[in-house]
Amino acid sequence: MIKVNFKSHNKEVYCNKGDNLLEIARKEGIFIDAPCNGSISCGKCKVKLLNGKVDTQKSGHLKDEEWEQGYILACNTKVIEDIDIDVPSKLSSSMYGMKIEGSDKTKDKEIFDRAKKLIKDNNFEFNINIDKIYMELDEPTIDDNISDVDRIERYIRNNLGYSEIDFTIELLRKIPTVLRENNFKVTISYVKKKNKITILNIESGNTEGKLYGLAIDIGTTSVVVCLVDLYTNEVIEKASSGNAQIKYGADVIHRIIYSSKGIGLEQLKKAIVQETINPLIESICNKTNISKDDIVSTVVAGNTTMSSLFLGVYCDYLRQEPFIPPFLKSPNLTSKDIGLNINSNADIYLSPSVASYVGGDITAGVLASGMWSSEENVLFIDLGTNGEIVFGNKDYMMSCACSAGPAFEGGGISCGMRASSGAIEKVSIDKDTLTPQLTIIGDCEPIGICGSGIIDLICQMLIKGIIDRRGKIHRDIVNDRVRFNEHEIGEYILAFKEEYNIENDITINEVDIDNFIRAKGAIYSGITVLIESLGMDFSVIDKVLIAGGIGNNLDIENSILIGLLPDIEREKFTYIGNSSLVGSYLTLISNDAKQKLQEIGSQITYVELSVYPSYMDEFISACFLPHTNIEQFPTVKELIDGVNIFSKR
Amino acid sequence: MIKVNFKSHNKEVYCNKGDNLLEIARKEGIFIDAPCNGSISCGKCKVKLLNGKVDTQKSGHLKDEEWEQGYILACNTKVIEDIDIDVPSKLSSSMYGMKIEGSDKTKDKEIFDRAKKLIKDNNFEFNINIDKIYMELDEPTIDDNISDVDRIERYIRNNLGYSEIDFTIELLRKIPTVLRENNFKVTISYVKKKNKITILNIESGNTEGKLYGLAIDIGTTSVVVCLVDLYTNEVIEKASSGNAQIKYGADVIHRIIYSSKGIGLEQLKKAIVQETINPLIESICNKTNISKDDIVSTVVAGNTTMSSLFLGVYCDYLRQEPFIPPFLKSPNLTSKDIGLNINSNADIYLSPSVASYVGGDITAGVLASGMWSSEENVLFIDLGTNGEIVFGNKDYMMSCACSAGPAFEGGGISCGMRASSGAIEKVSIDKDTLTPQLTIIGDCEPIGICGSGIIDLICQMLIKGIIDRRGKIHRDIVNDRVRFNEHEIGEYILAFKEEYNIENDITINEVDIDNFIRAKGAIYSGITVLIESLGMDFSVIDKVLIAGGIGNNLDIENSILIGLLPDIEREKFTYIGNSSLVGSYLTLISNDAKQKLQEIGSQITYVELSVYPSYMDEFISACFLPHTNIEQFPTVKELIDGVNIFSKR
Repeated sequence: MIKVNFKSHNKEVYCNKGDNLLEIARKEGIFIDAPCNGSISCGKCKVKLLNGKVDTQKSGHLKDEEWEQGYILACNTKVIEDIDIDVPSKLSSSMYGMKIEGSDKTKDKEIFDRAKKLIKDNNFEFNINIDKIYMELDEPTIDDNISDVDRIERYIRNNLGYSEIDFTIELLRKIPTVLRENNFKVTISYVKKKNKITILNIESGNTEGKLYGLAIDIGTTSVVVCLVDLYTNEVIEKASSGNAQIKYGADVIHRIIYSSKGIGLEQLKKAIVQETINPLIESICNKTNISKDDIVSTVVAGNTTMSSLFLGVYCDYLRQEPFIPPFLKSPNLTSKDIGLNINSNADIYLSPSVASYVGGDITAGVLASGMWSSEENVLFIDLGTNGEIVFGNKDYMMSCACSAGPAFEGGGISCGMRASSGAIEKVSIDKDTLTPQLTIIGDCEPIGICGSGIIDLICQMLIKGIIDRRGKIHRDIVNDRVRFNEHEIGEYILAFKEEYNIENDITINEVDIDNFIRAKGAIYSGITVLIESLGMDFSVIDKVLIAGGIGNNLDIENSILIGLLPDIEREKFTYIGNSSLVGSYLTLISNDAKQKLQEIGSQITYVELSVYPSYMDEFISACFLPHTNIEQFPTVKELIDGVNIFSKR
Repeated sequence: MIKVNFKSHNKEVYCNKGDNLLEIARKEGIFIDAPCNGSISCGKCKVKLLNGKVDTQKSGHLKDEEWEQGYILACNTKVIEDIDIDVPSKLSSSMYGMKIEGSDKTKDKEIFDRAKKLIKDNNFEFNINIDKIYMELDEPTIDDNISDVDRIERYIRNNLGYSEIDFTIELLRKIPTVLRENNFKVTISYVKKKNKITILNIESGNTEGKLYGLAIDIGTTSVVVCLVDLYTNEVIEKASSGNAQIKYGADVIHRIIYSSKGIGLEQLKKAIVQETINPLIESICNKTNISKDDIVSTVVAGNTTMSSLFLGVYCDYLRQEPFIPPFLKSPNLTSKDIGLNINSNADIYLSPSVASYVGGDITAGVLASGMWSSEENVLFIDLGTNGEIVFGNKDYMMSCACSAGPAFEGGGISCGMRASSGAIEKVSIDKDTLTPQLTIIGDCEPIGICGSGIIDLICQMLIKGIIDRRGKIHRDIVNDRVRFNEHEIGEYILAFKEEYNIENDITINEVDIDNFIRAKGAIYSGITVLIESLGMDFSVIDKVLIAGGIGNNLDIENSILIGLLPDIEREKFTYIGNSSLVGSYLTLISNDAKQKLQEIGSQITYVELSVYPSYMDEFISACFLPHTNIEQFPTVKELIDGVNIFSKR
């Protein structure tokens, strides 16, 4: 046995000679960022070898100076003798403390109040079929010696009028003891369905008024859990964290691949349920002092892959032509089916998916957007780990998924990172000195750059003449902020290590820019094809709603300038935040909304871009700043014509 | 740590100083008979100390010679140093190889065919709501890319006409893989309920025609499992064994007490499910080569205590006044709720109980008896570990439970044993020499005496003038078969150890006889009070049906002579064998029968004997051979008057 000492975590681990270092860390629950899931393609799993030798190779992701300092890629390293390892804290902490929009309580209240208004505006009711009743039962005597169950059923029949009463074996096992804890005075939680009721919980004494639900948004990158009072419909508490599945891959494709091998599916299910959601529930319950048994209903929204992995359902066919999801609507589920740490009989409702790459997060988002009741034409864009688009109004809705990848969340960008503490979120560049001015999340040194920062940066580099419309750095710039490596790949330095006393420079290179341009091109061409497929053009768009974590600090003007968003009136754009979470919340507090969500799932038409004839042409044309056809960006064209901002310096 | 070497089992076990020997054996799964569950009152847990010292005490259950040979009571022994122990094989084997009536295939077929006739005679149908369908689904293409679940549902909608389709998460997890094992050719097992179907199983290829169910009788002493072909309604295979709960007590009261402490409930549930039923299922499936996944329905009948313990439901209130059962009708259950090793979605239906001591075995037995459609007055007696009685006809049914205890199965009798190999099942005694003639189960030496043997023996001892009508041995008998101990307790020797080369004499003493008389008195007085409570007498009885394992070798004439059964025309008596199992079988193959069983559960009126004013008087009067009031036994009286058989020798 060989000893690996993770100095940074104060943890000694034993393994066999030849074991992969990333795998060793994963087994021990030591978080090392590995968005590409160990395929040596992202370079994010850098760790520092402090002592000992390993079997590894220098990859292109490691700079000479990093290599000399002892940095290695964990995924590309075999352990051959006892070693000491340092996992840089920026990596291990990037998953936690992630900046998730809406953690501001006042802003949250506004968002959820606006959502409730949507219910009212559509004459929906805040009707749920769960309730509680306090019952003082007659104590048994030799003359009234019916069974415990019959005693409860008799009360329900006489007081609630239901004769068909259902319950689980777990509940049955509680009944005899709970009945006698407080002289046959108990409170029952129950669900009404047609003429039948199902008992969810039995508690000693009177606990009426305590009934809670959870609205959960399972993002590929981050997860949010809201605790909702089912009597007042108020959001009582909210907690969020990174999705612990990140260690198995940053995007859905890498996770699907991982899930299809060995115990991968089990590990991914465990990562989301046991390692992500249950700890969030735990923290919420501790904070609010609410009994988990009183949480009796849950609505979950996630994309099709997240939904499958949450249920532990094999989903490898999602990524193989013809891209078949295992299911769109989930079966009836209770929390014990999943292992959620709440009342074991709590109903778990999964927001329905539309297709392989338009999932329950989008249907929930569409519900929250209100576009299903809109007379106007609404363009809904979810800019998350992937990009999904829905266009339509109350009469029809079309959707598509763009293979945008994780670039908006920093994936595939060498210094990219999620929008957490230390991320550069806003950038402007001085046109003369080319010195950048940075806005950093949190009160700390910069660690990397997140999606909104990258949009600003590329826009600024274009406007200030550092890059051309293909995203290439002008070769004749003479400035210490711009340099070229031995392969003639250019990069721009956002932050010198000396400036901030950090370990390495923070840079963006031409490969990064290219990756980002392809991501924004995927979104833009997706919008174009979707609207074209209806025989329409951008002029019909009355409203653009931008959802998703990425949208939080999105600069609309800059996004249009680089050709991510269509060049239409700026006042048509609105951020709507985490619409998937809001949709889950509405579904939790209103059966009418749930009914509508089911309808939305069936009504949205899915357009498979990959088989749409013009999509590839549109995509290639959009892989330009802002676009090969500048006519599509009249306001940008005007700028160019006026001051020729895109000319060489 | 101290080592206990169970030489007889070739098993070394480590324990702490002071641990109880019976508990140590139980933990290791070494079977030691302990009907009184370690309360030092039955004397059945005798083991032999071969080496080492223990902390124990000589109890009245140990004869001097046994004590000298090293016999100790395991329940009354603390381990204080390394020891070697021998568990006599007659004890460890008595549970297995138990003689269970109806293991004769031809006789079985007759019984089940007669049961099917009952269905037809009552114009019931062999209707079950489970079926299979083989489906050749269209393989998915890019133009037909609905989800796997939607593909199955589309087929069902188009071919079976159901639009509401339900399934579990376990099934969902199988779907993607099974669909692709054989190019989307699969067979679905499903249950129809109203306008909804629930998918139970999905299998690759065409498996139509293979669909099975189980009828299970959980007796306090023995358990029988029948595998039934749900297409032909034939019983394909049958297996039985002792109830592994026996190690925690012989009767329901001892088991309830054990279940109410520590992990007792869990242990008892495990004993019946994992240690008794699952091995029987395993053996049946191995023998018939049937896939456990094709077993999709199960009907279980057991008394109220067995039903509770089978579900793992706390039932201590069953034995505390006012004797409240946790439930009578069980909730909807599937096998995964219980841990039965068959298709995890298989429905488990529990025969409904009537009251705390009239359980699902009796309702199932009543169903099988056909008395619910009889014009005649039928007396149904189940002579098992306890004794339950039902009296009535198609218009009404009254029931009661007699606290007969386990005497009919050898419990509370010093040389008593269950009707397994080595048990004396028939006895006659030579009137001159007092030498007994024994019929022994199996081709072996006698080990003890079972219920039917005890009935014969007591009857013979009475007729041959060995005992008087109080069950006391005449003091003036001079015969080596009769002896008295230092406390002046008399005993009769059935088998001298020298006769058969066995370790100890097989005897019956006055305490045993007294125990037995109280048991038969409980049954007889129960019958009396039940019929009296209707303002009737024995003359109204048209038919007596005797059910239960005990009844197998019951001699009716002898049973009347000792006052166990009422003295009415002998041709009115019929054995019906294990009616509880037959009732389960009927319930499994016919929904109409299941409906009737539910009705029977509600229709039977329960008479609580303990609060019935005259019961105690009747019981005391019945604790006599045959009865204090000989007028109730006219044919016995005639015998007495004729030959004065009961006079002293």
